[in-house]
Amino acid sequence: MIATEALRAVAAAVDGDRVLGRLDELAAIGTDPLGGTTRIAFSAEEEAALAVVGDWLRDAGLEPAYDEFGNLFASTDGNRAGAVTSVSGSHLDTVPNGGRFDGALGVVAAIEAVEAMKAVGALPQRPLEVVVWRCEEPVRFSQGRVGSLLFTGRVAPADLVSIGDPPFDLAAALAEEDRRPRRERSRRIASCLELHIEQGRRLERARRAVGVVTAIAAPIRLRITIDGRSDHSGATPMDDRRDALCAASELVLAVEEAARREAATESVATCARLTAAPGAINVVPGSAEILVDVRGIDAAGMERLVEQIRLSADAIAARREVRIETTILSRGTPTVLRADVVDALAGAVQQLGHEPVRLPSGAGHDAQCLAETAAVGMLFVPSVGGLSHCPEELTRPEDVIAGVQALAAGWLCLAQSFG
Amino acid sequence: MIATEALRAVAAAVDGDRVLGRLDELAAIGTDPLGGTTRIAFSAEEEAALAVVGDWLRDAGLEPAYDEFGNLFASTDGNRAGAVTSVSGSHLDTVPNGGRFDGALGVVAAIEAVEAMKAVGALPQRPLEVVVWRCEEPVRFSQGRVGSLLFTGRVAPADLVSIGDPPFDLAAALAEEDRRPRRERSRRIASCLELHIEQGRRLERARRAVGVVTAIAAPIRLRITIDGRSDHSGATPMDDRRDALCAASELVLAVEEAARREAATESVATCARLTAAPGAINVVPGSAEILVDVRGIDAAGMERLVEQIRLSADAIAARREVRIETTILSRGTPTVLRADVVDALAGAVQQLGHEPVRLPSGAGHDAQCLAETAAVGMLFVPSVGGLSHCPEELTRPEDVIAGVQALAAGWLCLAQSFG
Repeated sequence: MIATEALRAVAAAVDGDRVLGRLDELAAIGTDPLGGTTRIAFSAEEEAALAVVGDWLRDAGLEPAYDEFGNLFASTDGNRAGAVTSVSGSHLDTVPNGGRFDGALGVVAAIEAVEAMKAVGALPQRPLEVVVWRCEEPVRFSQGRVGSLLFTGRVAPADLVSIGDPPFDLAAALAEEDRRPRRERSRRIASCLELHIEQGRRLERARRAVGVVTAIAAPIRLRITIDGRSDHSGATPMDDRRDALCAASELVLAVEEAARREAATESVATCARLTAAPGAINVVPGSAEILVDVRGIDAAGMERLVEQIRLSADAIAARREVRIETTILSRGTPTVLRADVVDALAGAVQQLGHEPVRLPSGAGHDAQCLAETAAVGMLFVPSVGGLSHCPEELTRPEDVIAGVQALAAGWLCLAQSFG
Repeated sequence: MIATEALRAVAAAVDGDRVLGRLDELAAIGTDPLGGTTRIAFSAEEEAALAVVGDWLRDAGLEPAYDEFGNLFASTDGNRAGAVTSVSGSHLDTVPNGGRFDGALGVVAAIEAVEAMKAVGALPQRPLEVVVWRCEEPVRFSQGRVGSLLFTGRVAPADLVSIGDPPFDLAAALAEEDRRPRRERSRRIASCLELHIEQGRRLERARRAVGVVTAIAAPIRLRITIDGRSDHSGATPMDDRRDALCAASELVLAVEEAARREAATESVATCARLTAAPGAINVVPGSAEILVDVRGIDAAGMERLVEQIRLSADAIAARREVRIETTILSRGTPTVLRADVVDALAGAVQQLGHEPVRLPSGAGHDAQCLAETAAVGMLFVPSVGGLSHCPEELTRPEDVIAGVQALAAGWLCLAQSFG
């Protein structure tokens, strides 16, 4: 355990104005007409954000180097071969019409933490690396955390399912970045800490500035296709229809109801996308597709939910004489974080004078990909109204600064004690 | 009443092989990858079909001339100024992935009818015009029958609501066709007969080849927008959501249920298009839009249905704490065809040896636009399984030929008796 004075000195060295200014600067890259931020992975906007972050890293004395999947690392040890490091960071990509804190906060915080440790001469023995993961949001593919999953070998490029039209060509996008400096492949990560917004309402309700994450949810993603029959909308009596959109609508409500019945395990399910074809105003929809996102920190609860969705699909298909197929696109398992890491982080947060809240994360995060091989921790700051992935996403300035201070202190602890 | 021998002679002069061959030829223009025909109004495919039809018209001794809205007319009297004519025809545009008979049949039949009357020297005194209406399908705009509505002045170009993205620019499309020969504007239409596929199952169930239409449905089209709240799909408990897609799904089922309750008036309602945004896999949908098509031949029944949809929308909005707005995009009124015209056509069909079925049309048709100022009739042929607006759309060859024969005889009657 590091002395409270040392942790407080690092926290005090955090430049709150710089942090808030940098978040403003990033938010301006990809401002969309609806007032949100749209900075899709491998877009010109994400590229511009990476360039700005590259400047900040160099200002902090860190030189960016990229792995083969486009993830950016910047180290305190000059990218030395064979080094064992402690990393912190997050991502810069957003969902369409997303918010300004999701991902960006964790990147800005990690850079600031290095600056703060340097300023008070408290850099740990262990080399630190700031990381920017790519493709964290599941916009290009049916799953998110693509950069961290590829980095840790938990998925291969061939496993990725593109959900865009036309399909996103990751290999071509990476080829464009091929000339960038490479991170030494022999480096190994011993520990990892990520600061993120909660994207829920627990911290706000508890009136606490900092949360220590105990478990991280993982999604199971389903594609449900419905084949009914296209008919003329004026000439086909209601009883003669096999309306794919009506069947899809029943299923959307069945998914919602199934998730409500899993309230005890806090599992949730969302029909995030629905398309119906052909979409002409005088045609009964003949086919439909739904993408479903199932989340939870209780694997059994998630499985029950998926099973209930399948049963509902079968019942609707039989009653409406349509064909419904359910395909599992990706199947994540929840991550329970190491108790000793959670305790150490809660201790550090407490040493800074905050009462830490222990809470699970409903959203998935890059850090969890490292949990099998490294000591992984996560810190949360409150989201006003729990809102995220929307223009209204907000973490109050005082909570942002408290979070960055906690990250700086927590990262120092983690690198020293679990390095 | 025209002598049975004369009507039968005209019917016998119909060249069935030529009719079927021409339907094949048109079906090949716009064949799509899903096995249907996609020939959108003002597309290259519709243009190609118009060129082919132009050749057939000239072969029949008719010279095409266009009105200012792109509708094609071809007359037996050389487009004489001030003439009072009788018209027959339909349209060549289709819905996306549509069938091969909807519209095309009525055009091919009208040309064949002129050929048949000429062949036996039975052209009526009244000049005949074959017509091809444009934009009959509501693909470019929120309503169909655009060409015939513009021609009759029932809508103005400024009233049209484009539903495409980007919006369809009718003025620019018409400017491209500006050099074409113009139909004399002083010509007046006294009567109109259209042959069309039924797009329902009544004739098939009655095992009859030809139907005489008594009333034509008109659509009321609604746009329903739903504003909920975008949230993170993993971090937002089910009870904290304002999911716009769940609200939209309830509304889709409410529309279906409301229409079922209007079974007595044979009114129907279809949610033809549903979009939900943002559509990212890890975001609870924050907004949605539904386009609804309400049809019937009973104006009061249609109004009750629209009112019930509004009430359901209000109830869902209140319960789910979302905002729902319902806008009427277009409001048609059903057309009851003149009893004397229906009787005359039924008589002609009977003289050809068919037992005519009197039936309403659930779909709208171009001919109804003329009903205020001209004697309008419509003939139907069966649709196998009632299917239409899909690749499976089929009218059996023997029914196609019976229908064209009935059109030729019926048009002769109409031009002579209602001139």
